[in-house]
Amino acid sequence: MVKRTFLLLLLVATAILFSSVNYLKMSDPLPSWKEGMNKKAILLFVEKVTREGSIDYVKPKDRIAVFDNDGTLWPEQPLVEGLFLLKTIKAMIAKDPSLKTKEPFKAVIEKDTAFFEKNNQKGIMQLAVAAYGNKTEGALEKDIATFLKNEKHPKYNVPFTELGYLPMLELLAFLKDKGFESWICSGGNVEFIRAFSEHIYRIPGQQVIGSTLKMEFKRVDGKHALWRDTVLQSFNDKEEKPVNISYHIGKVPVFVAGNEKSGGDIAMLTYSDERKGPSIQLLINHNDAVREFSYQEKDNASLQAAAANGWNVISIKDDWKTVFKK
Amino acid sequence: MVKRTFLLLLLVATAILFSSVNYLKMSDPLPSWKEGMNKKAILLFVEKVTREGSIDYVKPKDRIAVFDNDGTLWPEQPLVEGLFLLKTIKAMIAKDPSLKTKEPFKAVIEKDTAFFEKNNQKGIMQLAVAAYGNKTEGALEKDIATFLKNEKHPKYNVPFTELGYLPMLELLAFLKDKGFESWICSGGNVEFIRAFSEHIYRIPGQQVIGSTLKMEFKRVDGKHALWRDTVLQSFNDKEEKPVNISYHIGKVPVFVAGNEKSGGDIAMLTYSDERKGPSIQLLINHNDAVREFSYQEKDNASLQAAAANGWNVISIKDDWKTVFKK
Repeated sequence: MVKRTFLLLLLVATAILFSSVNYLKMSDPLPSWKEGMNKKAILLFVEKVTREGSIDYVKPKDRIAVFDNDGTLWPEQPLVEGLFLLKTIKAMIAKDPSLKTKEPFKAVIEKDTAFFEKNNQKGIMQLAVAAYGNKTEGALEKDIATFLKNEKHPKYNVPFTELGYLPMLELLAFLKDKGFESWICSGGNVEFIRAFSEHIYRIPGQQVIGSTLKMEFKRVDGKHALWRDTVLQSFNDKEEKPVNISYHIGKVPVFVAGNEKSGGDIAMLTYSDERKGPSIQLLINHNDAVREFSYQEKDNASLQAAAANGWNVISIKDDWKTVFKK
Repeated sequence: MVKRTFLLLLLVATAILFSSVNYLKMSDPLPSWKEGMNKKAILLFVEKVTREGSIDYVKPKDRIAVFDNDGTLWPEQPLVEGLFLLKTIKAMIAKDPSLKTKEPFKAVIEKDTAFFEKNNQKGIMQLAVAAYGNKTEGALEKDIATFLKNEKHPKYNVPFTELGYLPMLELLAFLKDKGFESWICSGGNVEFIRAFSEHIYRIPGQQVIGSTLKMEFKRVDGKHALWRDTVLQSFNDKEEKPVNISYHIGKVPVFVAGNEKSGGDIAMLTYSDERKGPSIQLLINHNDAVREFSYQEKDNASLQAAAANGWNVISIKDDWKTVFKK
């Protein structure tokens, strides 16, 4: 009996081994990416930093990947949080019409879109301060959830939460499988992004770095609460991104992805690029007017930095087989 | 053959099942804790929040545990970072004797220990600003590592890194096993704590919240670097703790541990206690002059808050069988 059982176990073991070898050969972790230099670069990079014995081996504890959100993980035309802010501000004006004469409420009523782009997009931060300030932590959770459930993207006519870029969702899953910890580092408000990061990207809220308002821990209505003041704590854009990556993570990211539009990701791509040891940088280029959007930075700074530093420019048109889940 | 094999497999399966039931019955996840109310409270709490179907069930994604460091996870007599700061400051004076006439250098030379306790321990923050400021990120890494390797605790005569409280190390391992993510939230400098958190506590650096200096991303010596200014960004103590927990985690901790000494943990214990849903708070009481130290808060605020709110006061003397690894 012993011999027969041994043979049987050997058979089972061989079958398992064979099927997993087959699986490894056949499975493509990035099926929505077209074959090409960029896909190859990503696969080779991940292979070399995760293979023990490789001179570029990176220990699991240092496998930090950081992603911008708007325009990198989902579309930024229109800016989703911008729509939420306008909705919130309008609801505030409806409740208290005297706000109409004050900025930034006045600009919203007068549709002064230029106002919001002024001073390096500080206008939109004024909207955020007005909408999120003077409220307790968690006070907007329901409003954000309702907004994300009900509003639809003007071009695709589906909820925004269905618009995570499929190639990037595959990349996140692939990196997780390879022992990376992925973070979001975005100019958006941290609470807004946390409302969907786990659902869309499987990135837990504690791995989200975003813009913040100053807060105080104090008694509100007889209970202790975190109270958001109407003062900006951090506008997590440009040079603030590496600063906040250091505060939150304390490790220089090995893998970073951002996109061209406003130069907002150049600093964090540079920070990763000058890491001691291996690193890879992706810059997404929005050049697909048919399937997504086509827009270029006025001064072209992001693409120029990518060319100068050898970052991988991801062309939505040429590198992605599919942009969204069907 | 089929029947025989089936019987064999059944036997194996039964053996595995039996041995794991036995294992569960026999293994105590907290062997260094004496039997008693506090150990029971911890075990029961973890059981009820992790058992599916329990009305107190907490999803894995929300299982956040937060620990103070000094006096909660390792001794704070003397304050380890204080020793490092004194050493660093003295080295700075040796290099530039003109510093002798300036604060906080002057106080160090004159051993004006009162200076450091002034204004809610802001004195020690002045030391930290002087020692850590005007340097790039990572510039102190080597000094911290050398210090931790060479210096020994005056009472125990072993390196500080061997002085994690054994009962707390067991608790951290137990919580990890139960799907909790543990964070440190300490008044200490974040970079200092990150230098040992993975080694002693198995808590990755990105799960450390500490005090910080303002930083800038700029060119230093021809390379990009994060530059620490001589301005305090956050003194992570008292009411700042829940504020920073929100910035970094965005979830109210289910499990929190702090200690009595300066009232520094009352706010974060309160924050957790008023969480919607189940939570547990531990407050460590340093009352064991023989095996550790005995000291009480002047105004007794922490123990009073614990009594008023029903927090679990952990007596080092009565609740811990063993304090340190042999």
